[in-house]
Amino acid sequence: MQTDYTGSEYRLDDLQTDGLKIFQKPADFCFGTDAVLLADFAAKRIKKRARVIDLCTGNGIIPLLLYSRRKDIDIYAVEINEETAALAEYNMEYNKVTDYIHVVHSDIKTLPNSYKNNYDAVTVNPPYIPVGKGLLSGKEKLSAARHELYADLENIICVSAELLKDKGKFFMVHRASRTAEIIRFMSLYQLEPKALRFVYSNQNGNANLVLTTGAKNSGAWIDILPPLIIYNEDKTNTKEIDEIYRRN
Amino acid sequence: MQTDYTGSEYRLDDLQTDGLKIFQKPADFCFGTDAVLLADFAAKRIKKRARVIDLCTGNGIIPLLLYSRRKDIDIYAVEINEETAALAEYNMEYNKVTDYIHVVHSDIKTLPNSYKNNYDAVTVNPPYIPVGKGLLSGKEKLSAARHELYADLENIICVSAELLKDKGKFFMVHRASRTAEIIRFMSLYQLEPKALRFVYSNQNGNANLVLTTGAKNSGAWIDILPPLIIYNEDKTNTKEIDEIYRRN
Repeated sequence: MQTDYTGSEYRLDDLQTDGLKIFQKPADFCFGTDAVLLADFAAKRIKKRARVIDLCTGNGIIPLLLYSRRKDIDIYAVEINEETAALAEYNMEYNKVTDYIHVVHSDIKTLPNSYKNNYDAVTVNPPYIPVGKGLLSGKEKLSAARHELYADLENIICVSAELLKDKGKFFMVHRASRTAEIIRFMSLYQLEPKALRFVYSNQNGNANLVLTTGAKNSGAWIDILPPLIIYNEDKTNTKEIDEIYRRN
Repeated sequence: MQTDYTGSEYRLDDLQTDGLKIFQKPADFCFGTDAVLLADFAAKRIKKRARVIDLCTGNGIIPLLLYSRRKDIDIYAVEINEETAALAEYNMEYNKVTDYIHVVHSDIKTLPNSYKNNYDAVTVNPPYIPVGKGLLSGKEKLSAARHELYADLENIICVSAELLKDKGKFFMVHRASRTAEIIRFMSLYQLEPKALRFVYSNQNGNANLVLTTGAKNSGAWIDILPPLIIYNEDKTNTKEIDEIYRRN
């Protein structure tokens, strides 16, 4: 039975780029600034005509934002939850982008062997919170979007390394407080970190998020990119954030 | 024979704090902003009445700057080069701080066993450049101040972990491009990174330096502190940098 995405459980948001729209289920998950920043970070760095795989794709926001910037790439979008994968698939049909974005309903840990060493880039906006930290919501799917129920940071980095071709690139957004773990796991799985960009709400606080890129089987030196500040002192968006939203 | 530190090979700089002065040998090494930033970063975080050890102390700049802020701590200052250790010792005598700062002429890798598990804090502004990277100067001592001739990053972190008491704190300034290696070695030697502060020349470029602190046998989460920007757009020092120089 086809889900009625026009029902009250869903809402339709205009991505304000290329006429793209996205159905989201607020009770489960709606995309935030982190998705927009990751898409921008990756869109600028993915090589031409790349084959890209987006893990933990949810409603498909990252693939849609990548498509809006990069019509030359082919995107696979993997989602473990059946209902959410169907929503992502519907979003691609609704936007008529199924030639560019291919939704795969699968656990990232059990993708077929044919997926291995097969991608030029991985993008991932994973659940941030380790199981046992933070309050679990009563709704199991909400938790899976926010908590590491089906895949933890090590799983995600390990799988990403397997999926990438030699020198293939990894792009992730995560909580800045997990930077040390991210670097350790990336090194462990030969996905050497090549650049980090820290995202700060404002100039005077600690970073909230980290944008990470790495390359499979690469060397050790890393660029620490300019700080990305979201708000000016008067709480308006910084010029750079406005530009990122405009580009996406 | 006592070296004549008033000779033309040396210069005397006023630290503009507590009447402290430092003899430096420009042909070897003169301290820079990195030393000032590390001293400020550590002075704010070292616990009361701590026993501190400064590795690769050179002419003793870090201990002198720490002393200017923290009269309650006891500082050991280790230098491998005999001539440089003598200069550091002379600086402590000249400033009449030998009750607070104890210069030790030794290779950090061969300190006596009695030094192990004995310090509340380690500070270190090590040579930044791996051997084989960058041009080696003809003058061997200049190279040792800048190149990892006698101790590389792994040696320094390994020795620091040995010297610290349980939960003792590690403070280092290094090139930001080596952040991933720093985190890996710190984790390897159970010196868990607890906070990083990246130092940028200006708002729009990559970070040049990273201030790192870690704690022996601690947990995994890390704070990414606010970006530390050196220059305003008009090339004047930022307010924070002026404040740091004023405090030291």
